[in-house]
Amino acid sequence: MTLFVGLDLGGTHMRAVAAEPVEGQRPRILGDASRATPRSGPTDVIAALADTIRSAVDKAERALHDVVAVGCSAPGPLDPRTGKVHVAPNIPGFTDVALSERLSTALEGIPVFLDRDTVIAAIGEGLAGAARGARDFVYVTVSTGVGGAIVSGGRMVRGATNTAGEIGHWPIALMGPRGSGATAGIEGLPPCGCGAVGCVESFAGGRNLATRFGVAEASEVFRAADTGDARAKELVAQAEAALASLAVGLVNGLNPALIVVGGGISEHEPEHVLEPMRKAIRERAFKVPAAAARVVPAELGADVGMIGAVLAARERASGRGEWSQ
Amino acid sequence: MTLFVGLDLGGTHMRAVAAEPVEGQRPRILGDASRATPRSGPTDVIAALADTIRSAVDKAERALHDVVAVGCSAPGPLDPRTGKVHVAPNIPGFTDVALSERLSTALEGIPVFLDRDTVIAAIGEGLAGAARGARDFVYVTVSTGVGGAIVSGGRMVRGATNTAGEIGHWPIALMGPRGSGATAGIEGLPPCGCGAVGCVESFAGGRNLATRFGVAEASEVFRAADTGDARAKELVAQAEAALASLAVGLVNGLNPALIVVGGGISEHEPEHVLEPMRKAIRERAFKVPAAAARVVPAELGADVGMIGAVLAARERASGRGEWSQ
Repeated sequence: MTLFVGLDLGGTHMRAVAAEPVEGQRPRILGDASRATPRSGPTDVIAALADTIRSAVDKAERALHDVVAVGCSAPGPLDPRTGKVHVAPNIPGFTDVALSERLSTALEGIPVFLDRDTVIAAIGEGLAGAARGARDFVYVTVSTGVGGAIVSGGRMVRGATNTAGEIGHWPIALMGPRGSGATAGIEGLPPCGCGAVGCVESFAGGRNLATRFGVAEASEVFRAADTGDARAKELVAQAEAALASLAVGLVNGLNPALIVVGGGISEHEPEHVLEPMRKAIRERAFKVPAAAARVVPAELGADVGMIGAVLAARERASGRGEWSQ
Repeated sequence: MTLFVGLDLGGTHMRAVAAEPVEGQRPRILGDASRATPRSGPTDVIAALADTIRSAVDKAERALHDVVAVGCSAPGPLDPRTGKVHVAPNIPGFTDVALSERLSTALEGIPVFLDRDTVIAAIGEGLAGAARGARDFVYVTVSTGVGGAIVSGGRMVRGATNTAGEIGHWPIALMGPRGSGATAGIEGLPPCGCGAVGCVESFAGGRNLATRFGVAEASEVFRAADTGDARAKELVAQAEAALASLAVGLVNGLNPALIVVGGGISEHEPEHVLEPMRKAIRERAFKVPAAAARVVPAELGADVGMIGAVLAARERASGRGEWSQ
């Protein structure tokens, strides 16, 4: 049986599964493991990744030499072709790290295929989740931040330097009629983590939502809105309006068959995420693409990074270029 | 010498050229012709198109049987694979017309390849204009309306039903902090021709700009702004801010190597179109994609429809699928 490893590298934890792919379905997971992500630099992070992989393979009662390839989901920006992470802002010292090469060396030469977390999620949903069979879809995650990945004609939209898909930073909040001159488009808008203003994420990302309300978790804002708090209701309405505009833009601009919506906020607050997107598409998008587009929840949940990484590794090991180039 | 015909079907006029393609350059135009577009229904329009083509071929001192294929640029929505126009709002009675098939019949069986005007323009700029050699670029037209086409990895982004690229109708004007509840995102915004509000085109399209200022032509708004009219200056600032947000969104979302900007307003008012886009990318987009993206003027001018149609016909006649599927 061909064994693959799927790895999800995050700022606080790393998780790995050893799994056998099953055509058109979720891979069969045979073993899993996790570690805290070291804060002491890339050498320790890579050692911990190798250790986590070995644990997952052990739990699967298999040997490392059974592993065909490792897929790795990591926060961007990174280069999926060279396997180099440009910078991972939440992992101290993780700048210009040749992750694929160094991890492969630590694993006795097993190939390691790296890709951005949202791209891996889109591959997972496309091959074994909500977008099975769709050639044109957009994956959107609404969580701490808002991100995504775009698939067109069965191929990942990569862009010139592999950063395409950052749709959470599409500006949707020009002040328009009230702004003017030098201030048109910026006055009164909340700042976004990316340094700009007016991005979808500045309104709909969990971290920004919580910060604007002065609490630790976005869930508290939704709870306060449910109990009638006026400011929380206003913030939730703005988050909904931002996601609604994003949905209309995606439908008019990209004409997807599906918009697959994942991430923690989508999962816990679908009526504040998926419903406003559907309503806006019905009411505001062009008729032909609106009729072609469905907004659906992601199917792979919190394991999407590992499951997607298993599938990405299988695709790239088999030379199927449509996802990687 | 292989001869192709490029046809540009518009609401008021139709124009045709008979030309020989020259690899990597503009085709060599041997003859051209134009007619007013009949207002009396599709049968008359198709007869006039065939007549215009015959005139262009005559002027080239060639015969119809020398023509390998005809490329036709038309306003969407349409289906480039079947050659059917769903609806051309500016041509009376032009609904569900099998344009390729009927025109081919009128031309003794010469194949006719149909595509949307902005897609044809992107093919023209990509093969013989400002985007020669670029595999990832966006074509944007700022004219009466705002439209575009997206090329990713050397392929046209088509979408599920061939309407992708309508980036002029990406909403960029959520009212954000001041709107709330049911009205969040809509209050106080000017209407767009598409029936929605907040689209790039509602601020930056020439027709909307002129209508909002109460004049016939957008050029009058720019002239009034130049002479210090406060309302005109405000409208121009809003148009610039809308295009700036579009540029940031395109760079963050699609990571193009080039944004090629065409259309009459871009050509006549580059400091109000290209410059604000460049400035916004520098100041507000993510660093990696911002460093990769250049905003450049289109090179093919008002002939882009015909030139692009010649090149599209050559590509499709030779079976090169990257532009058509």
